[in-house]
Amino acid sequence: MKVRIHVRLKPGVLDPQGRAVHHALEGLGFEGVEDVRIGRLIEMDVAQGTSLSALTNMCEKLLANTVIEDFAIETLSEETA
Amino acid sequence: MKVRIHVRLKPGVLDPQGRAVHHALEGLGFEGVEDVRIGRLIEMDVAQGTSLSALTNMCEKLLANTVIEDFAIETLSEETA
Repeated sequence: MKVRIHVRLKPGVLDPQGRAVHHALEGLGFEGVEDVRIGRLIEMDVAQGTSLSALTNMCEKLLANTVIEDFAIETLSEETA
Repeated sequence: MKVRIHVRLKPGVLDPQGRAVHHALEGLGFEGVEDVRIGRLIEMDVAQGTSLSALTNMCEKLLANTVIEDFAIETLSEETA
């Protein structure tokens, strides 16, 4: 079962990496970019039937820093065995 | 207009960060995790009407290292002005 997790900084948390990328895009001449935020994309293969609560637990314990980050879990495929 | 870009390592490219996370998940007692790959999630606010080719250009020039990374561009909202 494929799972995709988006980890992003909470709104209001300063994102220096996003700032740097925004600045670099402007430096390269790209116009119209208003904001850039950078997060992590975590793609996992997990055993069929892994529960959402187990995945949430993984995020809270390891994958995201819940003080400053939000996460979203998306299950991509549910092939039946 | 909100744009979401996924940057991930190409298949076959070693992902030490993913390996480390996989190992750490096992160390924490989570079972059934078969593979972990870690990429970047880039969320941008761009001017309405920014073309896909401009976004592709940004990815090729700055956001992704196309030697080892693939990128996928997703336009999230198309509110008309």
